[in-house]
Amino acid sequence: MVRLLCVIACLGFLLAAAFWAVSSETAEDPYREYKEYFDPITEKYVDNPDNPVTPEKVELGWMLYHEPRLSKSGLFSCNTCHNPANWGMSKLPVDIGHKWRKTPVNSGTVFNAAYYKAQNWDGRAADLEEQAKGPILDENEMAMPSEELAVERIASIPEYVRRFQVSFPDESEPLPFENIANAIGAFERTLLTPGRWDRFLLGDNEALSDEEKAGMKTFVDIGCASCHDGVVLGGDFEKLGRVQPYESESPSRGRYDVTGKEEDKDVFKMHTLRNIEHTYPYFPDGAVWELDEAVRIMGETQHGLELGDSETEEIVTFLKALTGEIPEHALKLPVLPASTKDTPRPDPN
Amino acid sequence: MVRLLCVIACLGFLLAAAFWAVSSETAEDPYREYKEYFDPITEKYVDNPDNPVTPEKVELGWMLYHEPRLSKSGLFSCNTCHNPANWGMSKLPVDIGHKWRKTPVNSGTVFNAAYYKAQNWDGRAADLEEQAKGPILDENEMAMPSEELAVERIASIPEYVRRFQVSFPDESEPLPFENIANAIGAFERTLLTPGRWDRFLLGDNEALSDEEKAGMKTFVDIGCASCHDGVVLGGDFEKLGRVQPYESESPSRGRYDVTGKEEDKDVFKMHTLRNIEHTYPYFPDGAVWELDEAVRIMGETQHGLELGDSETEEIVTFLKALTGEIPEHALKLPVLPASTKDTPRPDPN
Repeated sequence: MVRLLCVIACLGFLLAAAFWAVSSETAEDPYREYKEYFDPITEKYVDNPDNPVTPEKVELGWMLYHEPRLSKSGLFSCNTCHNPANWGMSKLPVDIGHKWRKTPVNSGTVFNAAYYKAQNWDGRAADLEEQAKGPILDENEMAMPSEELAVERIASIPEYVRRFQVSFPDESEPLPFENIANAIGAFERTLLTPGRWDRFLLGDNEALSDEEKAGMKTFVDIGCASCHDGVVLGGDFEKLGRVQPYESESPSRGRYDVTGKEEDKDVFKMHTLRNIEHTYPYFPDGAVWELDEAVRIMGETQHGLELGDSETEEIVTFLKALTGEIPEHALKLPVLPASTKDTPRPDPN
Repeated sequence: MVRLLCVIACLGFLLAAAFWAVSSETAEDPYREYKEYFDPITEKYVDNPDNPVTPEKVELGWMLYHEPRLSKSGLFSCNTCHNPANWGMSKLPVDIGHKWRKTPVNSGTVFNAAYYKAQNWDGRAADLEEQAKGPILDENEMAMPSEELAVERIASIPEYVRRFQVSFPDESEPLPFENIANAIGAFERTLLTPGRWDRFLLGDNEALSDEEKAGMKTFVDIGCASCHDGVVLGGDFEKLGRVQPYESESPSRGRYDVTGKEEDKDVFKMHTLRNIEHTYPYFPDGAVWELDEAVRIMGETQHGLELGDSETEEIVTFLKALTGEIPEHALKLPVLPASTKDTPRPDPN
């Protein structure tokens, strides 16, 4: 009799559990229609079929990312303007480069940039690999006078030669300038910062507070998500000043500078809204330091809306929930190998 | 009978072991008289009674060491010129600072600098805490116009305020400029790089190869260890060009620039020989890139000796054995806290 009762109790428990599982699967997620605008980060890196991410290449790229010998003066590395300690950027309005020259626009964060449709504010680089070449050769940035000198510096160091052979094993010439950029690009493809926001999108509705979820609704209802959607809530091209012009002294006209087409005037590649509370100052000219001001400006320029204080605050609360976690490997410094007698010396002039 | 034999065998073994232990303790170490010039690193950090090293202070100092908001432009941190990825320095002949101005002398490595008798080539700072203030305020380096602005930047960030309170709990005003330097100094006091050389000094004669030990003998026999002795094989004051002048275009006359005394002309604080293969270019003017050339110059200027190729090579072999291991915590980047509305903005001018 006791045994029978036990069996019945067990069966009852299993039935209840099964019912609960089914019902919670089919129950409507109250945030479903909002979540549909966005995608979570679910991978460790964003691969590139033309430059597959491998552990060897990532480690080499990590070293080169911190390598000041890739700048003419020996002062700058990728890390100078895209420092993981500073959420993947320098947090300066525009950047300072060789001989104290300035870049025309603000440097964006490298974190999650692998998801962008194109790189740079004007989208002039198709992907991270192409982008990586730009600052090395730009006279306002790292100012290497030629690809050859960059290769000569790196190829004079036996440890790098060995690492290029291991990272690009199928290539007869493993160390063209191209592969310096490919290694750096592979490293940057691992710089993803998933966080609470992704847990929320993946089904854990408790990962965001009620205020943050309310902010998300305001964000979507106002129309922000019509452009700021997908994995990085941005990353595509959009006109800055769709309804009202964005006032700026910046020389950059965005995509127009690349294509020369009238319709591309002030069209910029939107940077990500992930980690946005840490990736100030905002906009291509880096002129805006406060997140609430940036939200208000967006309301005006993109939607012709004058956002009230409470709406602005709600959106800012939501945006702060987009802060993720910096992966541990991004916060490590490599030990750079020594130069040799053959290494061309740094030149500050 | 078998038992008795076993007991005898065991006793015999114990006796032999005891004899071996005693004899190897009393046996003459063939390198004893050489080792007497040097001291191993046996501690985790070099403490300062006036600024005791605590974990909280070290963590705060580590953040501030990487903090570009301590420079006027927001571009430079301590790490720019003393990068652990580059063995605690920039590896530039002289450093590049605010508005592309140059420092008069080469930046030394921060690694093991806690053991120096004084800081800077001219010894103008008594200790690391005092040194840390110099570059922040130097118009050629980080160029902060005042101590007040440095404090204002840091004190505008709540996380820093909290960390200063925890790091300096007994002080009524925990965030004077002094304590920014104290925290950085405490961090730098942990940047020690023990290695094979220390294991050798502590009794493991196999930690160095025969060639390295032969090189050590040459180094001592020639007289190098009369100045390059102690824990860091340097760190005290010495005239550069004791026998023959060191030819240089450097504006620095060393200690003379501080004291104005004739006898201090070209007297410099010797930098450490630890990690010397990685801490080129050499000498106060950073004019010499090759270790063998530096050794030859030292032979001439300090001893009036023209060292032959084999002697030079022996010494270089020994010097390379002085490379230690960079501690793991030195190779980590902090995540820097966000600025606030009250944080004075960077100024590149």
